Amino acid sequence: MNNRIKTLQKRLGEWEIDSLLIENPIDLLYLTGLLLSKGRLLVRPDQAELCVDGRYFGVATLKAPCTVSLWIKGKESEQKGRVGIDSLWTTIANFEGLKKESPDALWVPINGPLTEQRRIKEPEEIASLREAAKITWAGIQHIRSLFREGVSEQELAFEFEFFVRKSGASRLAFETIVAFGENSAYPHHQPSSARLQKNQIILIDAGAVFDHYCADVTRVFFFGQIDPRLEQMVQFVRKAYNAALQQIHIGAMIQTVDRAARELLAEAGVESLFTHSLGHGLGLEAHESPLIRWNGDDREMALRSQMVIAIEPGLYQTGLGGVRYENSGIVTKNGFESFYPEN
Amino acid sequence: MNNRIKTLQKRLGEWEIDSLLIENPIDLLYLTGLLLSKGRLLVRPDQAELCVDGRYFGVATLKAPCTVSLWIKGKESEQKGRVGIDSLWTTIANFEGLKKESPDALWVPINGPLTEQRRIKEPEEIASLREAAKITWAGIQHIRSLFREGVSEQELAFEFEFFVRKSGASRLAFETIVAFGENSAYPHHQPSSARLQKNQIILIDAGAVFDHYCADVTRVFFFGQIDPRLEQMVQFVRKAYNAALQQIHIGAMIQTVDRAARELLAEAGVESLFTHSLGHGLGLEAHESPLIRWNGDDREMALRSQMVIAIEPGLYQTGLGGVRYENSGIVTKNGFESFYPEN
Repeated sequence: MNNRIKTLQKRLGEWEIDSLLIENPIDLLYLTGLLLSKGRLLVRPDQAELCVDGRYFGVATLKAPCTVSLWIKGKESEQKGRVGIDSLWTTIANFEGLKKESPDALWVPINGPLTEQRRIKEPEEIASLREAAKITWAGIQHIRSLFREGVSEQELAFEFEFFVRKSGASRLAFETIVAFGENSAYPHHQPSSARLQKNQIILIDAGAVFDHYCADVTRVFFFGQIDPRLEQMVQFVRKAYNAALQQIHIGAMIQTVDRAARELLAEAGVESLFTHSLGHGLGLEAHESPLIRWNGDDREMALRSQMVIAIEPGLYQTGLGGVRYENSGIVTKNGFESFYPEN
Repeated sequence: MNNRIKTLQKRLGEWEIDSLLIENPIDLLYLTGLLLSKGRLLVRPDQAELCVDGRYFGVATLKAPCTVSLWIKGKESEQKGRVGIDSLWTTIANFEGLKKESPDALWVPINGPLTEQRRIKEPEEIASLREAAKITWAGIQHIRSLFREGVSEQELAFEFEFFVRKSGASRLAFETIVAFGENSAYPHHQPSSARLQKNQIILIDAGAVFDHYCADVTRVFFFGQIDPRLEQMVQFVRKAYNAALQQIHIGAMIQTVDRAARELLAEAGVESLFTHSLGHGLGLEAHESPLIRWNGDDREMALRSQMVIAIEPGLYQTGLGGVRYENSGIVTKNGFESFYPEN
């Protein structure tokens, strides 16, 4: 049994359950080191059993840190007692199936049983996140060198991916956003065949995955002259970022971080152009807990040691363009240690 | 309103519901043409409304084939009457949230409300699937040309991806499987740093995505001399494939197709080495309905016109290697039109 499973086992009492069923593939990867499109880990106080179908049985037997059994449809082992299930993962149909398989079990829905544990990163996870960030930053510098009139958003996105994959990334954390000019006003713009013209803004939001861990960073650049309205948006966004940063330290309440950025933008009269959350946790997923938003579910949570978060204020004006500035890094005693250089 | 939404609207009566809530991003893409990480489409008999958050509101207003509204957390519109929800997508936590938002609604769980509609491909979907297959096949030929002693599984997987992306694919349908020698015994092997040696088998299972539609094909090759045991496995797998093909035509019952392959393997005494389903539907997802398996949920379903399916018998012997042969194509009146050449 590895330490991650052991840590989880210690929490079963807290939820007053006899066992916990994990089926979310990301949680299975976190707990077993195995990437499975389908599998079931049953965690009991003194035992853990991974159940996989024929496609994965061989590899799981070799590598899983726990007992492995073969999943035969219709012959699932019946659960008894109080069984925890993840209410953020289990669908209504899954739940109906579980009830049929184990009519005597008492089901206890738990909202993301691994969320809290995964929020605090272990040293080796932080090392992987740093490496993902390092590769990503090199990729951003690479595509900066390719800015020229006529290059397309899709071409730059492809160049980023090709570069980071050659540099050791296994995949992208999310589809790279490359947006020229007015396209940058759409926070989740998909790279198009649009070609770069003089005096356009270029927004790049990108992240590589290294050893399953995600990077996430955003920068804007100007190709030629800067539109003064966009330049002002850049100033506001950087000030909002700095205002947020001043609030970040171990023990700070999450809503105060988002509020600091939003209040600055409100004073400048542009708060309505900031249409998304200030930030989010980062790890095996590009967006994970905590959600850094003044009115989000995690608003009263305190930032803690070894949390890795992304901070990304942005302003978006349809017909003109958008500006976002984003760094990911570690919450420290006195602040925030970004994985990226400032510029 | 587009025809896909209209077709869905006609089915509401069949489910005895006043409205249907769609949140699965693939179904949202199918119905609206928009790729949204989060969104909600409410379909009523005479109306459809897409609700998205600030990140997508701009692009949805421009492009959605229906009314668009802005999602404000805590201000979701309250549902009334009998509301259908997708029990394959809606989690327990989502469901609890919906019940809170709309305490007076009567919820009707439906198992995949779009599954049946998406199973039958429209001509333009088939055209995209053909193009995805064409790009994929060219990619396979490309990596065949790179077989040489010392090349790694990861290098070949990367070369495949690079080739298909340059050829117009937007992404991979799934992580490419390249397995040398004994690694081929794991049906879902992840490409490793293992290097090709003389007289090894090479298994490649790959698919490109074109215009959101997935390809899926598998071939094995021999680099040098063929191990006679693997050669025999190749013969069995091809015979099983042909036996399955003889059963495919419009109107054929799905279980008869899988049974034909399995019976042939049983006669050869190797049925236990065939550890997965015979096949599956293919479309916006690499694996979709129908599941072609003798004891699966779709076993009594008939194959229909305009269904696109993958047929993939395989045999796996730990310590020796594995063989799989897979083609995707269209069910026709008298058989199966593969998207791929035979060899």
